[in-house]
Amino acid sequence: MTAELHTLMTDLGRRARAATRILALAPTEAKDRALREAAAAIRSDAGAIAGANARDMKAGEAKGLSAAMLDRLLLTPARIEAMARGLEEIAALADPVGRILAQWTRPNGMAISRVVVPLGVIGIIYESRPNVTADAAGLCLKSGNAAILRGGSESFHSSLAIMAALTRGLAAAGLPADAIQMVPTTSREAVGAMLRLSDFIDVIVPRGGKSLVERVVAESRIPLFQHLEGICHTYVDGAADLDMARQVVLNAKMRRTGICGATETLLVDGACAATHLKPLVEDLLDAGCEVRGDEATRAVDSRVKAATEADWSTEYLDSIIAVKLVDGVAAAVEHVNTHGSNHTEAIITEDAVAAETFLNGCDSAIVLWNASTQFADGGEFGMGAEIGISTGKLHARGPVGVEQLCTFKYVVRGSGQVRPG
Amino acid sequence: MTAELHTLMTDLGRRARAATRILALAPTEAKDRALREAAAAIRSDAGAIAGANARDMKAGEAKGLSAAMLDRLLLTPARIEAMARGLEEIAALADPVGRILAQWTRPNGMAISRVVVPLGVIGIIYESRPNVTADAAGLCLKSGNAAILRGGSESFHSSLAIMAALTRGLAAAGLPADAIQMVPTTSREAVGAMLRLSDFIDVIVPRGGKSLVERVVAESRIPLFQHLEGICHTYVDGAADLDMARQVVLNAKMRRTGICGATETLLVDGACAATHLKPLVEDLLDAGCEVRGDEATRAVDSRVKAATEADWSTEYLDSIIAVKLVDGVAAAVEHVNTHGSNHTEAIITEDAVAAETFLNGCDSAIVLWNASTQFADGGEFGMGAEIGISTGKLHARGPVGVEQLCTFKYVVRGSGQVRPG
Repeated sequence: MTAELHTLMTDLGRRARAATRILALAPTEAKDRALREAAAAIRSDAGAIAGANARDMKAGEAKGLSAAMLDRLLLTPARIEAMARGLEEIAALADPVGRILAQWTRPNGMAISRVVVPLGVIGIIYESRPNVTADAAGLCLKSGNAAILRGGSESFHSSLAIMAALTRGLAAAGLPADAIQMVPTTSREAVGAMLRLSDFIDVIVPRGGKSLVERVVAESRIPLFQHLEGICHTYVDGAADLDMARQVVLNAKMRRTGICGATETLLVDGACAATHLKPLVEDLLDAGCEVRGDEATRAVDSRVKAATEADWSTEYLDSIIAVKLVDGVAAAVEHVNTHGSNHTEAIITEDAVAAETFLNGCDSAIVLWNASTQFADGGEFGMGAEIGISTGKLHARGPVGVEQLCTFKYVVRGSGQVRPG
Repeated sequence: MTAELHTLMTDLGRRARAATRILALAPTEAKDRALREAAAAIRSDAGAIAGANARDMKAGEAKGLSAAMLDRLLLTPARIEAMARGLEEIAALADPVGRILAQWTRPNGMAISRVVVPLGVIGIIYESRPNVTADAAGLCLKSGNAAILRGGSESFHSSLAIMAALTRGLAAAGLPADAIQMVPTTSREAVGAMLRLSDFIDVIVPRGGKSLVERVVAESRIPLFQHLEGICHTYVDGAADLDMARQVVLNAKMRRTGICGATETLLVDGACAATHLKPLVEDLLDAGCEVRGDEATRAVDSRVKAATEADWSTEYLDSIIAVKLVDGVAAAVEHVNTHGSNHTEAIITEDAVAAETFLNGCDSAIVLWNASTQFADGGEFGMGAEIGISTGKLHARGPVGVEQLCTFKYVVRGSGQVRPG
């Protein structure tokens, strides 16, 4: 790392930290006004944002980016409007800061309360999806945190144009411009430098594919809210209603195959295999899903391919599913805890005892009874916009919204108490 | 690291992870029974524990350990009894596992609850204080976590003897022996190996002095609940009652100087310096405290030494205090946030507005109004025994008790819901 880059990044961190002093105390109205003014600025700047995006797209095409990457990079008028609306939706959320989580009085008369406060400075490292610039910054601002954004280099000009609108929103509300900063260089070394700013950044949120997250996990000296992978399971219990199981399994796998809550492995109880296995598998095959099964599953339809050991631990993010017979709910829990990624698992059953065994036994962020794993989403949970889903267990588990971007402090009010002894 | 050590440590981790499957679901009665039986075993093994400790003490003396280290290592009959009573007190705490933190129903009928579950496997790395073996293991067990303990090598035999009692407690309650494990070697490399067991350990708690914590922070690939330092401030505001200020300041500094909640810097508002500064400083001097002050402070008593810039950022853990005049509450907050360690700060004032400015403005885990900073302690907060105090902001902030050793999961109960769109 060059001395110049070190100075640049340290300065960014120092300015973010200074901004937190004001942000932490900023009234809800000021934060919401900044979000709404930024939304208005995005709308009025739509032409400039589209122009900057066209420049990124042209460079991306010349660089030979894949069609999927170009699609993520593209900002259509509808996507620009969605960014603006997203900021307005964040403005409409309840302010998490200042909420009293608990309060009690000690025998000596001291009144103690546990009060929500912002974390401080959040660093977001993401791929070339320019909309993340607005979404992530909006969530950080609402929760009273300063944001340092580092997007993929291919979206640099798009992000700069969005940043200009965000900065105008801050100014209109009288909030410091340093509340939202963007790393002003596309140098790859800047990510490494950012991951060592532990004096200035309280938590890093990597948003992107597995390789980006793995790099951040390996290099970071700062705590992370990370999403590694979603190897999600649906277990159809012996006491499952067949019609419900068919609908839920098909939705859990096929509604969208590329999201982290998509089911990757179907476990079927041996007790209902004779009646349930064939229709479940044929629904999937008929919908265009590749099925990789164990011996029993292969026996129900010749289109089923043989699963290998690796299939039980694979996140396909595609129209592929692994299917296995298990011997009851305890075996299903054992399979999930051995092969899963502690993300999201569902049981389909009419048996409340089996359901509780599964819900309690699976060591996962989200466990569902008679519902699709595709509900693993902060919006679907009614938590509002999310900056991501955490597969870690500390602090934030599952959807990471404005509440999870906060911490707390203990406020003690006394009348001159001293500690005896 | 030798292959042998790697195998040993991985095996320890694997067995701890396997034990979590049972511990997470263990009924409160089983955990409490194990704790009470372990307490009984410590009492009936008191002779054997004292014998093992005598062996450690003899080796420690031969090795030339300092008097302070030998005192920490020593297990008197009273200290052995305190360990047993500590386990009984943990048994009497409410079980944090299974508590519902929040629940709500979605428009589609899905009922969502956020339920407390154990973190999984906790690693504790501590110095040669054998009582930590019982205290830390007890807190992990109560919160449904498996524990991997690594104490200082000088206390190895004492810890082994305590472990034997803990293991008997587990057996009496029908809980797996692997719920509490001790690293079975005094090799220094074992700590490094433990800090890389990120597949098997969910969080590491380093307990000890700054050099131990700094080593763990530098090497760990596992999230930490760490305590770095407590540079705690007491600010005497212009509107402080002088008698109250004198009592609280003296207690905050001198009750015990070696604990993390001891005040290290006294800030006095220029507005009351003429009346308050001299009595506050003389109380401290008369109690045997060395006072290092700015120019104004040196003017009130010839015994005051000159403070250097380093004094504003020093955790003395001794009968020394730094004293400075500041220009009102905003300047006090600025000083605290610049020089402090985000631990514990107090304001003494009769002015509610100044108090709120201080309580809101200080970015610290604990902020007190008209009370001594020496209350920074889980027991004093009524939270029961603590495994330590965290100066981090994520997950656990302030006292780390059984609640902070847990995480949560989302449990969703539906009736066949699929996600539209």
